[in-house]
This record gives sequence, structure tokens and C-alpha cells, in this order.
Amino acid sequence: MSTSIFDRDLPKTQANYQPLTPLSFLARAGAVYAEHTAIIHGSQRFTYREFYGRCRRLAAALAKAGIRRGDTVSALLANTPAMLEAHYGVPMAGAVLNTLNTRLDAAVIAFSLDHAETRLVLIDTEFSGLLKEALGLMKGPRPVIIDYVDREFVPDGKRLGSIDYESFIANGDPDFAWAMPDDEWDAISLNYTSGTTGNPKGVVCHHRGAYLVAQGNVLTQQMRKHPVYLWTLPMFHCNGWGYPWSISIMGGTHVTLRAVRAKAIWQALAEHKVTHLCGAPIVMATILNAPEGEKTKLPHVVEFTTAAAPPPEIVLARMAEAGFNVTHVYGLTETYGPAVVNDWDADWDRLDISARAAKKARQGVNYIPLEALTVMNPETMERVPADGKTLGEVMFRGNIVMKGYLKNRQASEEAFKGGWFHSGDLAVLHEDGYVQLKDRSKDIIISGGENISSIEVEEVLYKHPAVQGAAVVAKADEKWGETPCAFIELKPGMSATADEIVEWCRKGLARFKVPKHVVFAELPKTSTGKIQKFKLREMAKEV
Amino acid sequence: MSTSIFDRDLPKTQANYQPLTPLSFLARAGAVYAEHTAIIHGSQRFTYREFYGRCRRLAAALAKAGIRRGDTVSALLANTPAMLEAHYGVPMAGAVLNTLNTRLDAAVIAFSLDHAETRLVLIDTEFSGLLKEALGLMKGPRPVIIDYVDREFVPDGKRLGSIDYESFIANGDPDFAWAMPDDEWDAISLNYTSGTTGNPKGVVCHHRGAYLVAQGNVLTQQMRKHPVYLWTLPMFHCNGWGYPWSISIMGGTHVTLRAVRAKAIWQALAEHKVTHLCGAPIVMATILNAPEGEKTKLPHVVEFTTAAAPPPEIVLARMAEAGFNVTHVYGLTETYGPAVVNDWDADWDRLDISARAAKKARQGVNYIPLEALTVMNPETMERVPADGKTLGEVMFRGNIVMKGYLKNRQASEEAFKGGWFHSGDLAVLHEDGYVQLKDRSKDIIISGGENISSIEVEEVLYKHPAVQGAAVVAKADEKWGETPCAFIELKPGMSATADEIVEWCRKGLARFKVPKHVVFAELPKTSTGKIQKFKLREMAKEV
Repeated sequence: MSTSIFDRDLPKTQANYQPLTPLSFLARAGAVYAEHTAIIHGSQRFTYREFYGRCRRLAAALAKAGIRRGDTVSALLANTPAMLEAHYGVPMAGAVLNTLNTRLDAAVIAFSLDHAETRLVLIDTEFSGLLKEALGLMKGPRPVIIDYVDREFVPDGKRLGSIDYESFIANGDPDFAWAMPDDEWDAISLNYTSGTTGNPKGVVCHHRGAYLVAQGNVLTQQMRKHPVYLWTLPMFHCNGWGYPWSISIMGGTHVTLRAVRAKAIWQALAEHKVTHLCGAPIVMATILNAPEGEKTKLPHVVEFTTAAAPPPEIVLARMAEAGFNVTHVYGLTETYGPAVVNDWDADWDRLDISARAAKKARQGVNYIPLEALTVMNPETMERVPADGKTLGEVMFRGNIVMKGYLKNRQASEEAFKGGWFHSGDLAVLHEDGYVQLKDRSKDIIISGGENISSIEVEEVLYKHPAVQGAAVVAKADEKWGETPCAFIELKPGMSATADEIVEWCRKGLARFKVPKHVVFAELPKTSTGKIQKFKLREMAKEV
Repeated sequence: MSTSIFDRDLPKTQANYQPLTPLSFLARAGAVYAEHTAIIHGSQRFTYREFYGRCRRLAAALAKAGIRRGDTVSALLANTPAMLEAHYGVPMAGAVLNTLNTRLDAAVIAFSLDHAETRLVLIDTEFSGLLKEALGLMKGPRPVIIDYVDREFVPDGKRLGSIDYESFIANGDPDFAWAMPDDEWDAISLNYTSGTTGNPKGVVCHHRGAYLVAQGNVLTQQMRKHPVYLWTLPMFHCNGWGYPWSISIMGGTHVTLRAVRAKAIWQALAEHKVTHLCGAPIVMATILNAPEGEKTKLPHVVEFTTAAAPPPEIVLARMAEAGFNVTHVYGLTETYGPAVVNDWDADWDRLDISARAAKKARQGVNYIPLEALTVMNPETMERVPADGKTLGEVMFRGNIVMKGYLKNRQASEEAFKGGWFHSGDLAVLHEDGYVQLKDRSKDIIISGGENISSIEVEEVLYKHPAVQGAAVVAKADEKWGETPCAFIELKPGMSATADEIVEWCRKGLARFKVPKHVVFAELPKTSTGKIQKFKLREMAKEV
């Protein structure tokens, strides 16, 4: 490459180059929107000045507690102010935030804490029992425990640490001079995903991607200044898809909810004039199925962003009637959450309802910060024809793709083979370039917005003394989207009932992963002995 | 720095790292908004498919013409489709776009072409005379000339090259596989600024900054999908402040105007349902002073972004009445245009009109993509107290600060001294952190949105045989914002009239730089002989 006059004497300096990080958004909001309400949690209110101050206190307290650059801080928290503060305070200390799914079982939590080499845990006392069990199962050194007591909602939770969160951050300086990341490629968060194997993989995200996806959300949702965001999406899902960072960009207000309950949602929508919320289809079902007395007329169209499964026709119609505009997005933990959006063409409004629903069911096109999205034959790495028929694997490329899997070079290299992130999801490409998912090659079941690895469930089933063969597939479910349906072949001369199998699974799996249906049958196999899951999916429909 | 588990085996790959460039915005819009109107120019219409295709054709044609990475392509164009295409097609060829101010004189154009080592010029035939004269003054090799003939508006312009723009790009492949920049730090544009010395300095901007400022505009203007943007701001000013790139992000429509004329503006506002436009105060004056018959009732509030001078109280009131919301921004060519915004607090709406105007007159706070903005004592590099009184120099830091000045290492180093970009503008810091300009240490006069270096005008005056001393200051002007006012001391025994002096200046300066007022007087000086310009500014008020 020859150099030109533009390659000479024009180096990066502190004046013209700064790492991209979403921490900058809060620093700006803390100054420009100082008196605007940043967080509403029950009867609590925090302005941006307070929010920024509390995040700096947390960072300072973590530094005092010995947390250093590149250390992991785990959070087992509900959607609370502490969880929002962790999204800024932990990286302000140079550390990496590892949010844990509060619905998982203790064994998986223990595995994550060990694998992440967690130095400190922020624990919501509602989940003390779960953490205590997990600490007992850990192999590595025990982390420091900080108890977060949500006084309004969980005053009586059990303490595990020696200090509570408020006392901990009170020791930190609200003017703490936090440092920018050394490099925008530095890790900001670590999210464990249930993959195809029993052990979860640690998805590492960086400051650059977090900055870009946060702006991508604002642009895609066409947010104006001071949005009001309702937390129906758990922040332990891909860092709440980046919204803890997005909302600071426009000086918005977070309305935090510990749990997805219809009454609290409708109350918040009316009282706080919510403009945006996100969630799996189960959240829409909860909203729509509220008793009529709990619903209110919305003051304006509320933007609802959904992922995990295409919104069904009837749900779309009822959401529109209730005053919501639904946007369908798609992504993976590996892509910071949403990396694909069903970018709605206003012309489609003129279609009839089922044609509209068919358009809305498509996953869509690349998010603004995603460089490229395509569907390819994973063997040849050639793009499939845009015919709406030819199956291929969905591939991503760009700055909102993870750094890789933690301590798993092989998995990272496989995931990035050929310069594209291989999603494992199978899809077609429509004539207009929109992607539509057709199947998941990784056999993931998505129930109530949670990913369930069919293989993880099968492993538990295989351990049952009477089980000879087992296969788990998704069965469509009106409420949960999908539920796991288990097909079992018993060993000759052995017997077991469906109830016994369910009971067995409850001992070894988080509650939401336990099969809702158990069918005893011969498993259909290919000539080479591979179980034909597509046949089981057909059979599951009839159950 | 100790390494952590997050520093291991997590390298950048093509899958998870791509250079930030605004070229990506057009690639996405070309696919997702293919049939949406991208450009309206007179009776011409281009969809995004066509716009993207024409940019690729231009890139391909440039490559065929021998343009290589890091070469300069200059554009002496009005606000036309070709100018928009140059903003994408030139960097798609790996080249650097140097837009030239069509209002400058031939000597400055010649200097720029020589200094930029321009390989090819895109010339609007309206300006053939200017370019011809400039080519005659050039010292370096003559660039290739491509004539852009705006058939609807300037059918009879004189051709200088051997091929016209449409034929040139027709030779390029609309599917040309353009390359992403090697690095997001690569130069995308070169803009000459009139500084304190006679010779302009070449401000080099990079892809990363262009990407970020383009998103910053959308976020700051709270643009929704498919905005309609009216080109009243010349694209040769800081690349139209980045809007040629911003509009692609949201799939918006550009309405290009060759000249700022009231009738055409009001027609476009009504006919195309314009949502956004930008300009110096002169554009607001033009809009407001249109004959009543030419004005129309606007279908919605139109966002007007103004820079160069604080909008006066009466103008704000009249703009609001006419249906515009005015946002005040501030920046320099060195900061990609707008890097500071008067972020409006809704509470200020309750103030009376003059208090509102006083709030609006403040330049404000850092733009979302600007890391930091402050006012410092340039000697000590200490922040001035936020008391609204203490003067200091406005300093910028962040990713929308230029790479530096082309072939001028010393000027770049001075500009970035201490890790901050020194703007040369003097300001105070208010208690709420808002910056307000008080004076310009570089003695720049801003007339009709154009920067005039007082020193450049003085140099011409000093060459007049009768002039002993000369000083030029800004004089407030209702129409132009400011105009140059010259104070002259004649040599003993010599004489000259004001008309003779104006005539002299016309020969050596672009028309807009010629002093509107000439005063013969003794120049007030300090004890060390420095001319006291603040006293002249007071005297100019009385002229």
C-alpha cells in the first residue's frame, strides 16, 4: 500500500481520538440533563446528577475493594436501580459486568462464576437462596458478596455478604475520576448463553459495540429527547439489549419493574407516560390478557419492540388496538441482542391483516450499526439466491458482533470462520433482501423469551435409569411461545411414567426448562442413526 | 498494564470488526430503501437504488481514470445531485473529497488545488470562469477536469474538460465493488479554512468522525424515518456539516437548491413537506423577508438548525410564528461543523421572549459524539470557573475533531497542544455548564455564513500605495450578520477615497470579503504598539 499525503503527520492524539464507550453517554447526561429524572423505581426517584453520582460511587467502591481492570463483577439482580448502576459503575472501574439470569439453576450459576473468575457478586436478596446454593457448588475461590436490599419490594431478603449495597457505595466518592477504557476493544460485559452443549459459553462484548448498539436502538426506535422506557425486558438478557446505555443518550427515564405483571405494566404506562418497552411475545400476552379494569387508554402510541419469535397475527391486531406499535427485531447474545430489524415499509400498511402479519413475521434487514447480514450456504460460503425458498445459515458481520467466547478459542474460531459470525439459525432470503428464519440448527427452544438448549434437557433425561433414548423439541405454545416436548424410548423391560420423568427433570434443571409434555415413542432415525427432529416436531404438534 | 482473561484469544476479525464509515449508510439505504426517493433536484428524481448506483458508477469511473487511494478529488459544485454523489463516490474510490467554496477568488482556489495536489476536478459549468482563472494561476500539474452540466438550470455553461459528468459516470459499473477504507482513520475529506494567515489551511477529516457526526446530527435533530432535508446550507461548508451522510441513515430525501432564494425555499417547503434545513442567520432572514404572497402555511413544525451567529430575539420570534423550531449549534471546520449544541431545556419555554433569546444565544454543550467540551485558560490549561464571566478559550476533545492540517505538522501540533483542540474562540462557562462565545481571538468575521479572515483583508489593504496602517473588524449587520469594516491610516502626504479603497479590494479579494465600510482614522494602539481591535469594534458600531 503506497502512502499518500494524507498518511503523513496526522497521528491520533488525545484531542482527536477517544475510545468509543457508552460510559460517555452517562457523563454527558449527568451534566446536560442533571435535574431530569433518570430512574423511577416504586416510590424512588433519581435524577441524572444522582444516577451519575451513584455510578461513580459504585466504581470508586469497587476500586477500593480491590477490583482492577479486566476483573469480573457478576450481578444476580432484578431490574432495579442497582442493576442500571452496575451497567456503568462496573466498567467505570475498568471491570467487566457479568449479569446472571436469575431463573437459572444453581449449578449453571456456579459454573458461570467459576468460569468468569468472578471477584465480586452484587446479589439481590430475593435470590440469596439461589446464590448460596451456587456458592456451595463453586470450585474456585469465593467472591466478595454485596447484598442489594430492595427495601420497598424485598425488605426481608436474606443477607449473604458483610455489607449491603447502599453502605458499600456510600463509601465511594461521587466525584470519582473514573477512567475511560484503555481501548474501545476492551471488554465491557460477559453474558453466558446456553448453546448446544451442556456448559454455557461466555460471550464477551466490548465498549465499541456497546456504544454502537446503544445508538442503533435510539435510531431504530426513532427516539426523541427524554423517552420513558419501561423495563419489562430483563437486564440480564444481553444487557437489556443495550437499553441501559441507550436511554442515557437521549436523557430518558428508566421505569424499573422487578417482575412482568400486567397491573404494574398498565399502571406504569399511564402514570409515567411510557414511550418505549421491549419484550418477548409473553410480555405482549401479559399486557393483552390483563383484566379489562386494569387496562387504560394510552396517551400516545407506545413503541413495543419484540424479539425471540415472530409476533402472531392476532397479537399484532390486538396490540394495535390497545395503542402499541410493534417492531420485530432479531439477534443473539453474540450480536449484542438486536442486530436485525423488520424495517417497516409504510406501503405495507395498506395490506390486509394477514398479509401484514406475514410481512411482520420476517426478521428483516441489518441494524444500522451492523455492517452486513446475509444468508449463506455454510459449506461454500456462497449467498443463497434471494428466492424466499433456499435455506441457508444466517451470517453477521460488523461492530456489534462479540469479541468471542471467553477462554474458548476453538469455539470463537468456529463461530467466525470465513470472516462471518455463524448464527446457527437457518433462514431464507426474500427478493427484497429481508431475512426470514425457518429453523434453528442448534435446536434451541425459546420459552417465555428464555433460550433452552434441547441438548441440555436431553442430557438430564439420558441420566434417568429407565431412559434408552431421548429427544427434545419445541412445541408451539400460546402463552410461552414454545415449550420443550420430550420424546423418550425406554430401555427394554424398564418402565417410567410421564410424571416421574418430569419430577426427575425438576431436580436437574431450572423450572422453565422442564418438559411440559413427555411422549413415550420410538425415535425416528435416519439410515445413519441420526434422530430426525423435524419428524418429532410434526408429532409434537399433535400432542 | 497486567493482562486479564479478557485480553486473551479475542482478536479482531472481519466478522467482528469493520471500519466505521458513512459509506455504510448508503449501502444500507440502497438495499433497504431502494425505491424511496433519495434526491429531488428541480424536475429530477433519484431513488436510493439509483443514487447508490450512481455513486458506485462515479467510484468506478474515478478508478478507471487512475484515481487511487489517498488521491485528492476536488469539487467546485453547487448543491446538486453530483455534489451528493461526490460525497460517496469519491471515498468509495479510496480518494479524498475536497469541496471548494464557489464564492472564493481564483487565487485561493489555485492555492488549494496546488496544496491538495488535486488529481481531478468536478466542476459545475456555472463556475467554469472561476476555475479557468484558477487553473491559469496553478503552479502544480493540471488536474483532469470533468464538467457537470446542470441541464435544467445552467444548460449553457462553458465546458473546460473533455468529458461531461454524465458520460463520465456512464462508463462506470453500477455494481462496482467499492472497498471499505483500510482504516477508519483514513481521510475522507479535505476542507480549506480561512485562518489567521493569508494562506488557508487544509482540514483533514476521517471516516470515523464522518460516521459519528452524521449519526450525531440525526440524534440531535431527533430525526424520524424518511426526513426531507432542504439544501439551503452549501455542501462546500464542512461537507454540508455531514448531512449528505446523515440523511442516508434514516432513508431521507435530499431536496437540492442551487441558490438560497426565498421563493424556491417556500415552494420546496410546501411541495416536498420539508422537515429539516440548516443555514446561517442570512437564510432565516431570506425566509422571513419573502413577500407575503410567496409564503405558505407549513404542514408541520420544520426544524431549522443555525450556526455562525446567535439567532437574534426578533428572528427567533418571527421564525416560531412562521412554523419553525430553531436549534442553535456551533463548531468549526476543524470539528466537522457542529460539535456544540444549544440543548434546549423545555423549562425555558416558560421564560419571557428576551430571556428565552438569551438562553438560545448561548452556544451550549458538547454534541453527542464529542467526548468533551470546555473553556480553559490556554496558558495554564485550567478550566475557567463556571461563573458566566471569566473568559477562556473554547477547547474540544473527541472523535469529531479533525486528523489535523494537511502538510502542516506545526499548525496541527499547536492546535492539539495539551491534548485538546484549541478553537481560538473566547468564551465563558455558565453555571449550568453551557458555553457562550464572547469573542474570537482569531479575528474572524462571519458574513452571510462565510468566514472572512480580517488579516487576509488587511494584507490587501496594506499593499495599497497610500495605506500606512490598516485594521479590519466585524460590524454587526442586520442582513449579513457581520460585514468587514476597514480602518485606515494614510501615509503622510498621500490620499485615497473610500471608493478607491473598495475598488482596490475588489481586485484582490472575493466579493464578500470586500469591506462594506472604510473609515480613515488613527488606529488606537497599546503601549507595545498592538492595535486595539476592541476599540475599533466600538467605533465600527457608530459608523
